[in-house]
Amino acid sequence: MKAWQFTGTNKPLELNEVPEPTAGPGQVVVEVKAAGVCHSDVSAIDDPGWMALFPTLPRTMGHENAGVIVEVGEGMDQWKVGDRVGLAPVMSDGDALGYGKWDGGFAHKLVATADNLVRLPDEVPFDLGAMATDAGLTAYHAIMTVGGAKPGMRVGVIGLGGLGYIGARAAVLSGAEVYAAEVNPETQKLADEIGLSGVAASIDAFKDKNLELIVDYAGFGTTTAAGIETLGEFGTFVQVGMGKLEAHISTYPIIINQLTIKGSKSGTREDLEGIYELMKTGKLNPPINHITHDDIPDAIDKLRAGGVIGRFIAMYE
Amino acid sequence: MKAWQFTGTNKPLELNEVPEPTAGPGQVVVEVKAAGVCHSDVSAIDDPGWMALFPTLPRTMGHENAGVIVEVGEGMDQWKVGDRVGLAPVMSDGDALGYGKWDGGFAHKLVATADNLVRLPDEVPFDLGAMATDAGLTAYHAIMTVGGAKPGMRVGVIGLGGLGYIGARAAVLSGAEVYAAEVNPETQKLADEIGLSGVAASIDAFKDKNLELIVDYAGFGTTTAAGIETLGEFGTFVQVGMGKLEAHISTYPIIINQLTIKGSKSGTREDLEGIYELMKTGKLNPPINHITHDDIPDAIDKLRAGGVIGRFIAMYE
Repeated sequence: MKAWQFTGTNKPLELNEVPEPTAGPGQVVVEVKAAGVCHSDVSAIDDPGWMALFPTLPRTMGHENAGVIVEVGEGMDQWKVGDRVGLAPVMSDGDALGYGKWDGGFAHKLVATADNLVRLPDEVPFDLGAMATDAGLTAYHAIMTVGGAKPGMRVGVIGLGGLGYIGARAAVLSGAEVYAAEVNPETQKLADEIGLSGVAASIDAFKDKNLELIVDYAGFGTTTAAGIETLGEFGTFVQVGMGKLEAHISTYPIIINQLTIKGSKSGTREDLEGIYELMKTGKLNPPINHITHDDIPDAIDKLRAGGVIGRFIAMYE
Repeated sequence: MKAWQFTGTNKPLELNEVPEPTAGPGQVVVEVKAAGVCHSDVSAIDDPGWMALFPTLPRTMGHENAGVIVEVGEGMDQWKVGDRVGLAPVMSDGDALGYGKWDGGFAHKLVATADNLVRLPDEVPFDLGAMATDAGLTAYHAIMTVGGAKPGMRVGVIGLGGLGYIGARAAVLSGAEVYAAEVNPETQKLADEIGLSGVAASIDAFKDKNLELIVDYAGFGTTTAAGIETLGEFGTFVQVGMGKLEAHISTYPIIINQLTIKGSKSGTREDLEGIYELMKTGKLNPPINHITHDDIPDAIDKLRAGGVIGRFIAMYE
């Protein structure tokens, strides 16, 4: 089968012929139906620091996948051929699909384990199922699991890009009253579609809302500082965006308002099940740009150039 | 009776003759035996911003008090004349003893309510009992209640001043393994007395200890940044010190190590009971400088000048 493989920093992905995988004990083979292209794929290719995540090369990339089980290995009797699945990317050994020793979904088949497998409900199409596994998982974990968004809670979301859209929408669908900060006027137009109670360029426009939770999906430092200044007493700020990894903050509101600040990264299989429950309603539909397997390198180039709205999802049939 | 009273920003305390208080419904009169002088008394006098806390003047200052009940008002039957008490300073109306409409302990008697009263065990002398009500309360709340220090936990403490000494010692007495950062070489010498497992100029010297909790009693911004860089995965940082109210931090370790940062201020009557339990053992003895009622303005001047080791406690007999 054909696989787009990473061979080293600053080298374009190579389209190589590789053997079809088989399922060892504790493994299944998944026929990939949809594979997302992520900005971290750009970083992995461009940033020498990421080489530590690739002890052996080449490696088939692609960590956002959904598909159908086509082979079941020993000890995996709870799964059967034909099961629709989404794949949580992180392995219990600390590795992830598309990194380390695990090939990803930029090929038509991959090997997965119990660490990855989450049942994909019939109501959720493969493209959404794939998007949910990384952008969705990370967004949901930050606002629902770490942030604890719930019905009636006054929630702020900073950034309505890939993650922020999903996070804000998940909170709205869960019954929260959601206000968002977004600098791009085009993206601000998504406010009605998401169901926001308000949108502005900076979260401090909602200082009077006495927000209980703010999730920063942008992470530009200034966003962290503004969020801390904006929260009400005993509020929680969740940092997930990594736009710029430093912030100049005032510690005064942290102490006086007895705030909690939490970092959030990635998510769990339980989070992925939670997103699929929301997606089953048909009401969580973030923007998607459908592409083919052939288009993957081009999508990576476009992500590198910036300004993309909507997740690139490669559909394999 | 004679009372040291605040009359306005930048004015020295005035020694005025005031009427002895009586106990209304829901109140008791406490004969003050020990009254602490706090750095916030300096701020209240020097900083015009604090005037908002004094709607009417003059006001008898002094928010760190312990003494004996000498009169019991209607509805306060759970207390009796002769009871030894420590006074948690914060009132449920948001005010505090020595601020707003409540006179404090820079006079020989004051009025207190159920908001303030905590039984002072016979084993705890009045000087310690008074010190515990503000410095002690704030220190204990931050490390024990907000930080959750417990037996075997690897804890970092930044700053071994008035609050830090008490916080570090409380954690040691509670069975935690405590490492401290302290820039003053003289104060570092308290390490053995406190029972520290290590002391250094900066908390990042203990990066290899995989600390689970760091409490910053200094709050100089750089201390916040160093604490965040030093914590192990899922660690908690508690900000209580307000030395300088801004910090330039890296958000990377917050996200990657999934840290929690919490602000902590003041504390509750339950916290004060907790400190008295520790003080009953005779093993929590922070440095004290005993003074008289006459010495209070001089103690405030010395706190303003800086470099004081040990809490000033005015003893009234």
